[in-house]
Amino acid sequence: VDFPYRFSRLAESMRPSPIRELFAMTQRAGMISFAGGLPDPAIFPVDEFAACGDVLLSQGQSVLQYGATEGWRPLVDILCRRMTELLGQEIGPERLVIATGSQQVMDMAARVLLDPGDTVVAEAPTYPGALHTFRSVGARFALVPCDAEGMRVDLLPEVIERARSETGRLPKLVYSIVSFSNPSGASLSPSRRVELVEVARRYGVPVLEDDPYRELRYAGEAAQPAFRSASGEGVIFASSFSKILAPGVRVAWAVAEPSLIRRMVIAKQGMDLCTPVVTQALVAEYCRRGHLDRHLEKIRDHYAAKAAAMAAALRRELPLGAAKWSDPEGGFFFWLQLPGRKAREVFDAAIEEGVAFLPGETCYPGPSETVGEGVDGRAFARLCFTFASSDDIVEGCRRMSRVLTRGSAFGVRGPGGAGES
Amino acid sequence: VDFPYRFSRLAESMRPSPIRELFAMTQRAGMISFAGGLPDPAIFPVDEFAACGDVLLSQGQSVLQYGATEGWRPLVDILCRRMTELLGQEIGPERLVIATGSQQVMDMAARVLLDPGDTVVAEAPTYPGALHTFRSVGARFALVPCDAEGMRVDLLPEVIERARSETGRLPKLVYSIVSFSNPSGASLSPSRRVELVEVARRYGVPVLEDDPYRELRYAGEAAQPAFRSASGEGVIFASSFSKILAPGVRVAWAVAEPSLIRRMVIAKQGMDLCTPVVTQALVAEYCRRGHLDRHLEKIRDHYAAKAAAMAAALRRELPLGAAKWSDPEGGFFFWLQLPGRKAREVFDAAIEEGVAFLPGETCYPGPSETVGEGVDGRAFARLCFTFASSDDIVEGCRRMSRVLTRGSAFGVRGPGGAGES
Repeated sequence: VDFPYRFSRLAESMRPSPIRELFAMTQRAGMISFAGGLPDPAIFPVDEFAACGDVLLSQGQSVLQYGATEGWRPLVDILCRRMTELLGQEIGPERLVIATGSQQVMDMAARVLLDPGDTVVAEAPTYPGALHTFRSVGARFALVPCDAEGMRVDLLPEVIERARSETGRLPKLVYSIVSFSNPSGASLSPSRRVELVEVARRYGVPVLEDDPYRELRYAGEAAQPAFRSASGEGVIFASSFSKILAPGVRVAWAVAEPSLIRRMVIAKQGMDLCTPVVTQALVAEYCRRGHLDRHLEKIRDHYAAKAAAMAAALRRELPLGAAKWSDPEGGFFFWLQLPGRKAREVFDAAIEEGVAFLPGETCYPGPSETVGEGVDGRAFARLCFTFASSDDIVEGCRRMSRVLTRGSAFGVRGPGGAGES
Repeated sequence: VDFPYRFSRLAESMRPSPIRELFAMTQRAGMISFAGGLPDPAIFPVDEFAACGDVLLSQGQSVLQYGATEGWRPLVDILCRRMTELLGQEIGPERLVIATGSQQVMDMAARVLLDPGDTVVAEAPTYPGALHTFRSVGARFALVPCDAEGMRVDLLPEVIERARSETGRLPKLVYSIVSFSNPSGASLSPSRRVELVEVARRYGVPVLEDDPYRELRYAGEAAQPAFRSASGEGVIFASSFSKILAPGVRVAWAVAEPSLIRRMVIAKQGMDLCTPVVTQALVAEYCRRGHLDRHLEKIRDHYAAKAAAMAAALRRELPLGAAKWSDPEGGFFFWLQLPGRKAREVFDAAIEEGVAFLPGETCYPGPSETVGEGVDGRAFARLCFTFASSDDIVEGCRRMSRVLTRGSAFGVRGPGGAGES
């Protein structure tokens, strides 16, 4: 008999994030995984990064000690310079905090801003890990539908108003992945970025502008961050080294007004005291040596080729009319609509066929945690094109094709069933 | 005008942890700091650790990728072996989770077990960082006084009963630093460890047995962990590499029943997805090369000498009757009672004199967050003996002596005031 733990109400309502299940699947022998949003390990700058291990020797006594909660100063300074340039205003260290991955930025924002029952406005579909973090402080979600230009910001006032009338108070936060969104791949158009911040400021609802894919553009023109249109007021800008260098370092950062950064730092003290100085120092050294910008050029080429490979394979392999999508201009994902299908059923058949993707429904909150109108994501599938090799991209799309060709008899093993195809 | 953020109720009630203030003070020129609980950077195994940077090259593709939330498997296996030996039962990976520092273990436990208003039973005095984390989920505290053998476990049933009658429900957790406690330096006696778990099991209140200083014993005999007496049931055992290797790696771990570990893992997913694989791999390699046990012998000698230096300096320098203490047998701290003084006033004068310590009151919750009887810690001071050099330990005790000799006229600059002494 287990010890009779009395779990917290929030823990009782928590379910494992689907990301967990996906990690397990990507390990199965022979599986081609488009499921996790993982960078390609083949493109990690292993040699250059390992060489930065010099700092563990040259600055060992500082690097191995506790660090400031705000971040390792040399890295803070590097990021302040980059952010000053990107955001078009002087970003001093009082406006920046380093976090143990973007997930921790969300968690800090959640703890500082959200009480149980508070509403977060998110675009639908959105990143399942963001739902997990906000859910874990008891948040509910109000959803803004998306189109090819990202969040339908024209609908935002109506969504905010409806959440206010249904819950008796204004939402506390708007969350948006503004460039090559996870999962939709869509980027918020320049005019919508301006409008997003205008609406949020009009209502006094801050925006968490999550932008980890910004530098992974393979085509088209970059839009200014929303933070820039707003001069930062009411915007928390977040980004990360996970997609542009390596997720295994778990180094991300947030930029916001000093009053908010101070609160986030206090919250972070109770979370992990500080992000590991070891990883911050390695990342700082990597940047100091000028590797990052060179690496960015390299991965943009690498991922552009993979995106093209998946676009071509999907067009060539999938049965006519089985899926609709727009080719992404950057980021990590294709977002497929599978007309007339339930992606979860397609997923089960795909696993048997040896290919994995993320069923769309994981990118939407459930009905019980949604304020206002829900969005049905059951017909969608997220395919990550960065992780699998180019050969696997082609073979994986062939497997997807076999699944989609078989009509709706998913999960039924006929005489010529999955095991033999 | 700042953006009108509406902070969460918990954020509104949060204050910076005193640790923050202390980090700032240790940076001031000429300051001798006994304040922060920092290891001695001079004893960090910089060469050996930096040489482990080889794994960044040899296993770069795995080390730079996302990792499992439970932990990097090679490190999990190393810790399972160590814990199996220490805890006297087979500890498989389903019973262990790696965390980004012990602070995150507390945060995971807090999120999984505590609702706002729930009570945590803690020994008084206790680690200010633990108060900060539990406070940040809205916990209140019921206090068990300590003596030279640690928590007065004989009083625990009464404290639990009283908290139940005052709050209408049982406490959710008992928190104790069982070996060389922070701040008191006291270790829970073997019989009390058994009794602690018996009481906690009788009431169904789990124990978080925080044991980061266990291997830093300079005299006397080690007691078995409470986890061992309980065969683990209802005990969360936590430890860390911060004190035995380096805090800058931010690698800690918790051992508990699988049902609880699973919940903690789900909570951790929303916190940082996983502890940096980079630091876990470096620590695993450091252990694999057999450095840890050799290093432990070295730091035990090193810190034993420093503990002896502080014991001698305090006895030699402090005015007779100005302070009472027991020499610690391990860990990081002296805990001084300053009869008739307010440690905060002594602290202010000490800062002017160029020596810093941790005023005792930071190690107790405030009256408004205490359930049942409070404990007055205002006459106590925590002095860390590990961080300062041996010369600074002597000079710091001389400065303490000057402050304590000056009677109660603290903060008043007379003609021969602080600046000249």
